[in-house]
Amino acid sequence: MNLNIALLPGDGIGPEVTQQAVKILNAIAEKYNHNFKYTKAAIGAAAMKINGDPLPNETLKICSEADAILFGSIGEPVHDHDPNANIRPEQGLLRLRKELDLFANIRPVQTYESSLHKSNLKEEVVKGTDFVIYRELTSGIYFGEKKISKNEQEATDTCTYSAKEIDRITHLAFKAAKSRRKKLTLIDKANVLATSRLWRKRVQEISKSYPSIQLNFLYANTAAMQLILKPTQFDVILTENLIGDILSDEASVISGSIGLLASASIGEKTALFEPIHGSFPKAKGKNIANPLASILSAAMLLDHFQLYDEAEEIRAAVEKSIELNITTPDLNATNYFSTTNVGNFLSDFILDDE
Amino acid sequence: MNLNIALLPGDGIGPEVTQQAVKILNAIAEKYNHNFKYTKAAIGAAAMKINGDPLPNETLKICSEADAILFGSIGEPVHDHDPNANIRPEQGLLRLRKELDLFANIRPVQTYESSLHKSNLKEEVVKGTDFVIYRELTSGIYFGEKKISKNEQEATDTCTYSAKEIDRITHLAFKAAKSRRKKLTLIDKANVLATSRLWRKRVQEISKSYPSIQLNFLYANTAAMQLILKPTQFDVILTENLIGDILSDEASVISGSIGLLASASIGEKTALFEPIHGSFPKAKGKNIANPLASILSAAMLLDHFQLYDEAEEIRAAVEKSIELNITTPDLNATNYFSTTNVGNFLSDFILDDE
Ligand SMILES: [Mg+2]
Ligand SMILES: [Mg+2]
Repeated sequence: MNLNIALLPGDGIGPEVTQQAVKILNAIAEKYNHNFKYTKAAIGAAAMKINGDPLPNETLKICSEADAILFGSIGEPVHDHDPNANIRPEQGLLRLRKELDLFANIRPVQTYESSLHKSNLKEEVVKGTDFVIYRELTSGIYFGEKKISKNEQEATDTCTYSAKEIDRITHLAFKAAKSRRKKLTLIDKANVLATSRLWRKRVQEISKSYPSIQLNFLYANTAAMQLILKPTQFDVILTENLIGDILSDEASVISGSIGLLASASIGEKTALFEPIHGSFPKAKGKNIANPLASILSAAMLLDHFQLYDEAEEIRAAVEKSIELNITTPDLNATNYFSTTNVGNFLSDFILDDE
Repeated sequence: MNLNIALLPGDGIGPEVTQQAVKILNAIAEKYNHNFKYTKAAIGAAAMKINGDPLPNETLKICSEADAILFGSIGEPVHDHDPNANIRPEQGLLRLRKELDLFANIRPVQTYESSLHKSNLKEEVVKGTDFVIYRELTSGIYFGEKKISKNEQEATDTCTYSAKEIDRITHLAFKAAKSRRKKLTLIDKANVLATSRLWRKRVQEISKSYPSIQLNFLYANTAAMQLILKPTQFDVILTENLIGDILSDEASVISGSIGLLASASIGEKTALFEPIHGSFPKAKGKNIANPLASILSAAMLLDHFQLYDEAEEIRAAVEKSIELNITTPDLNATNYFSTTNVGNFLSDFILDDE
């Protein structure tokens, strides 16, 4: 397969970890005879240093024309400490998602046997957790009309959803459930919100086209409890933007390995793949950043193009590295490996055919 | 002190647990020479059986005229299984909160040494957790304008907050922080919502009147992580309605003892006190329901009238009963005590002066 991949390393540890993800994609390309072409582009604080814009037009153009985008991380401390700054590096990513209409944010939550003990939850609670969250990303209250009255005595936010916006992510979530354990949970507040009632109506309607999938419903507050009480009960979770923001970050702490969590943001024309972690400026340039989440986001990229065997190969290599403790300091305090050496191990593991 | 208390036992185990709470309030009244008068009123499914209304006018009148309301629990399975029912028992409580303008929902999250092991979180993470959530309860998106277009292709919810609505609960939260560890955390989504920016502005303004309180801010998604990563960091949490709904239920699973959590809903003129647990219809009439959350909600009632010693006496008795394993089956699988006997122990403990 030929793939045009836009490469957006971004800030902090972003460049170091995406470099390893590219190394692994190249190993896969070599082994499976694919042709992956990369075009690098600037975003975030790194882009602001050039002309002040966290999403330069050229970057947007490269991304629009790419089959997929591999993204590192964004954010630099100098911008955090300036509350009067009108432009922040993070806006580069938010605008990119909106411009490319990346409407579905997908976050798998998996556990790794050897890092289970790192979770704040008990091992027996977390063990076997394996679900994926489909969060609507370009509508809802974050994108609705906002008002603050002139005298600053009243403010209003508006949450609107159209059937079309609900339908497109719902189909993606049902399709994911088909290739998984065939369970879909819609999380909403249908007891109080009109938008939630539209979500329920549409999802129930669409569920008729997926008769093999068991559909159930949870209120967002109950879901916030159930994620901690019994995370193994979930398979595919579908939810709107604000609720998904809160619950997906809550879910990210279940496995005890935030440094291993990848995500995808899918649009009609292109898709973006990124680790959920931030730019960890303190680790920048030290060759100690954990590249596994970025590498697992490359695996999600391959999944997106139905290169399932290739994606599985990356995941198996990652599991092997964790099992053998060939990991960075965050997972391996003593005897740790560098970012580069973890990437080298995985690349060799994929290319070595015994 | 003379107090007129409206007693709303409600459904399921509500009557059994509130009976014990009254027993304990009577012990306190006897010991401290107070005069507590109770007026019973119907609500929920129990009220619907009389004339179909989950909040009869007479109940509303009794509550409006009372100094405080002691509430049991609401809900009966027969109503859950009828999706076409227009009236649900729960509406009785929602309408009561709104009619009485109970704008501040207060939920303490504490731990009990002897039930720490029941948490899904690790003991060392949970130990020492002691915070209280102030959630705005009568405004925001749950009470804003709702629309569904005629062709059911679009739905809208509106979230509005006025400065006045923010200010009154903010003062309550700052006052609470003054008598606690002097830390207040406002949880919002000020990076995306106009209402959150108004919250921040008002809270920052009001904080000038409470110079001893350390104020900080967290985004709702980050807070959802931090509640699990480090629950001991929080003292007083202040937040709006929807975010508070989700995060307070998430927080309720931290301590491992949902059956011990009480809450208060405060208005300008009256206040309502209730356990956070539901009506557990399966346990109804069996004399096995845990009365401690209801009894601790009676302690919050006393706090509300500045009867701090009396409230502390109840809490000390509750801790003693847990320490001695004089508890119901949910906390004590073997050798458990009945609902009535737990109440009797606490009453005797309070009245026995050695
Ligand atoms: Mg997020
Ligand atoms: Mg709730």
